[in-house]
Amino acid sequence: MKLSAIAKAIGIAFDGEDLEISGIHTLDEANEGQISFLDNAKYISSLEGTKASAVLCKSASAGKVPAGCIALVDEEPYLKLALASKLFSPEVIETEGADALIGEGSFVSEKAYVGKGAVIGKNVKILPGAFVGCYAKIGDDTILHPNVTVYRDCEIGKRCIIHSGTVVGSDGFGFAHTKLGEHVKIYQNGNVVIEDDVEIGANCAIDRAVFGTTYIRKGCKIDNLVQFGHNVDIGEYSILVAQCGIAGSTRLGRNVVMGGQSATAGHLEVAPFTTFAARSGVTNDVKVGGKTYGGFPLMEQRQWLKLQAKLARLLKSN
Amino acid sequence: MKLSAIAKAIGIAFDGEDLEISGIHTLDEANEGQISFLDNAKYISSLEGTKASAVLCKSASAGKVPAGCIALVDEEPYLKLALASKLFSPEVIETEGADALIGEGSFVSEKAYVGKGAVIGKNVKILPGAFVGCYAKIGDDTILHPNVTVYRDCEIGKRCIIHSGTVVGSDGFGFAHTKLGEHVKIYQNGNVVIEDDVEIGANCAIDRAVFGTTYIRKGCKIDNLVQFGHNVDIGEYSILVAQCGIAGSTRLGRNVVMGGQSATAGHLEVAPFTTFAARSGVTNDVKVGGKTYGGFPLMEQRQWLKLQAKLARLLKSN
Amino acid sequence: MKLSAIAKAIGIAFDGEDLEISGIHTLDEANEGQISFLDNAKYISSLEGTKASAVLCKSASAGKVPAGCIALVDEEPYLKLALASKLFSPEVIETEGADALIGEGSFVSEKAYVGKGAVIGKNVKILPGAFVGCYAKIGDDTILHPNVTVYRDCEIGKRCIIHSGTVVGSDGFGFAHTKLGEHVKIYQNGNVVIEDDVEIGANCAIDRAVFGTTYIRKGCKIDNLVQFGHNVDIGEYSILVAQCGIAGSTRLGRNVVMGGQSATAGHLEVAPFTTFAARSGVTNDVKVGGKTYGGFPLMEQRQWLKLQAKLARLLKSN
Repeated sequence: MKLSAIAKAIGIAFDGEDLEISGIHTLDEANEGQISFLDNAKYISSLEGTKASAVLCKSASAGKVPAGCIALVDEEPYLKLALASKLFSPEVIETEGADALIGEGSFVSEKAYVGKGAVIGKNVKILPGAFVGCYAKIGDDTILHPNVTVYRDCEIGKRCIIHSGTVVGSDGFGFAHTKLGEHVKIYQNGNVVIEDDVEIGANCAIDRAVFGTTYIRKGCKIDNLVQFGHNVDIGEYSILVAQCGIAGSTRLGRNVVMGGQSATAGHLEVAPFTTFAARSGVTNDVKVGGKTYGGFPLMEQRQWLKLQAKLARLLKSN
Repeated sequence: MKLSAIAKAIGIAFDGEDLEISGIHTLDEANEGQISFLDNAKYISSLEGTKASAVLCKSASAGKVPAGCIALVDEEPYLKLALASKLFSPEVIETEGADALIGEGSFVSEKAYVGKGAVIGKNVKILPGAFVGCYAKIGDDTILHPNVTVYRDCEIGKRCIIHSGTVVGSDGFGFAHTKLGEHVKIYQNGNVVIEDDVEIGANCAIDRAVFGTTYIRKGCKIDNLVQFGHNVDIGEYSILVAQCGIAGSTRLGRNVVMGGQSATAGHLEVAPFTTFAARSGVTNDVKVGGKTYGGFPLMEQRQWLKLQAKLARLLKSN
Repeated sequence: MKLSAIAKAIGIAFDGEDLEISGIHTLDEANEGQISFLDNAKYISSLEGTKASAVLCKSASAGKVPAGCIALVDEEPYLKLALASKLFSPEVIETEGADALIGEGSFVSEKAYVGKGAVIGKNVKILPGAFVGCYAKIGDDTILHPNVTVYRDCEIGKRCIIHSGTVVGSDGFGFAHTKLGEHVKIYQNGNVVIEDDVEIGANCAIDRAVFGTTYIRKGCKIDNLVQFGHNVDIGEYSILVAQCGIAGSTRLGRNVVMGGQSATAGHLEVAPFTTFAARSGVTNDVKVGGKTYGGFPLMEQRQWLKLQAKLARLLKSN
């Protein structure tokens, strides 16, 4: 899509040299031919190093846009990003295009749906009511139980088991806000990649990335009713017990264990081999792995037990 | 249905003048031609002002039934209400009646189901495995992703996006209890109305009202795995983050924000522009809006942070 | 399957007298013709009394294997159990065999799926998108709402109501772990039995047993988004409010009430007529029933209220 057309569609004046824009990404991740944005001046250092071909930014930041990158100036760049994101949003379902490729030995129920351009490996089982969106990929020997939904463009590895009701690739929760308190959708044009040997329980929700990819790495085991925000990255061989939740952009190292009903805030890093007790509430990075944490706010689990003992004494005191 | 037939079906003696009863509602909301009930004497003032044509009540309250309203006297009126509710419960699926109306430009997958008497607007997308119950209404430009369920009689506005696995209109959680500890279903004969421009994430559950309507107002944005009890009313432009829960009959004002895994008890009122931090537990009305609350029990978030700092000091003390 | 073939498949030397093995069970529950296992020496007393025909155990325990029971010795018996469990895992879907039996007056939507060998009672309603796995049984007058999934071999009683998106019989969350931190699936070859007069809300997850049966007893009422681990036993007439979770192998007595977002750890016993307030976290057996508990760690609810009052005073102090 031409940059001039984007600018016009989102209501920003533009009369520079036109160019073709292929998509949107963050300042750090954008490549040539992509557009990016800077709303919070805190990230201005990322602006200076961006490879994006154009950037939505406030007038105060426009001077820092690097040479060869076009500044699209507006005082609400995040809101303009939301409007632009819609322009790159694909159809939710494609009714034309190449039929799906189904590998040897695979079973696809007549009551399942496999979209255009999907690629199904060998010995895959897709049970009744399962949905595989267009251009999705399902690896060899994987089972999609009844009523699983895999949105378009998402990828599931080999030897995975996805239990009923689980949703892979629903939209991440991202909105810009108007001054009147309305919310404008940021279209979630990324995808989800689930690597090999992952098992996911029933009725989980795994959001697609806003840009790029949400990852569940090799060998993870996920229980029922677990929530994954957009752009999370769950390290290999991690274990997530029922009803826990990982907020957007958080990255777990390998072999992290999250107890039942535990949760993390967004944009955190958790060191490998960290264990969180049930109901843990993680609101900061965990830099030291190999330990067990608990409580909300989070502390080492043995500290939490000590605190509870002190509270029990407080309760008995006058 | 004739009042005499209802009385007979639920085992209450009745030999007054007969009349036609169209449904059941609360004392405050019932109109002429409806039946109501009083179990807890605390609400006796509502009895005196009711417009209901008949009331299930204990003998001790019968004297307060207003003129023109028939008292159906029983010492377990709530249990009798449960029995009566079944008489007004419609079929879960209708196999006869007018075919659904499908608006211009709409896509209804062959693997979706649209019930009798449903009304689908223009440019709607109903994806494979989605279910639209009989007499449900779906507004223009709305998307029902795969495996969404909309029960009968529910209404969804224009430009809504409902992600996979979400259930709109399941029965509210209401039972009367016998002296032996058994539970008798109160049939949930109300519906759900979702207004325009609402987005709802994956695998949410939104219960239909016992009487009347469960509302999700204009412009609300709901994340994944969120729970809505029957008869809640979610104010416009509210934002509910993943895994939070709103118990029955609670009313949120406009632009309320509920953090992840937060929850409210039932029958509460929350002032507009209130923000609840993640894991908040709301057990009382929030009368002062525009503030951020947290903790369980609930307090202002800055108080909660102060309390946690004090507990950290307590932990370090001898 | 021959014991020699099992031993070969899982890589354990065996040259004793061969015999036919019908399945796997715990030391306490195994019968003749079954294989069992001992990993944690804490349970060695169960080994001495087992009726299993063969036992996977470490060399240090082999001497305690009773006469007539064959020891299969390996230093990682739990990992070997995982490998053996796969040998007894049935197909996720059977495409051959006897057609389902459908009782008189039942409605099965053309858009539902009923597997081979299933038995559907009288006046059952199976709505669009519902899935009934092979050899499952559904009792008279039961309703499966749209997009409910009942995995193979599970049983649902009479007069049950299962709301949309609920999953009955997904795999329990059980894995053995290698020294490299990988997880090896323990196939969940048990089932779920839901007794008569149970109602289950939307988007719940009820895991099948690893061995034996997960039970939800007569007259239970379950709200939305509730989690049941494998091998739980929920006592009759219990009430579980939205978003609560019961971890594996926990047994609730009759008429237990679990408030919203409450949870139990695994392998617990809860006395009959116990009530847990919302957000309770149960980590030990509850031996005294008829009381109300709350908090995490758990205490009597009135103690929890007292503790919160003390904390409020602490907050106000210097």
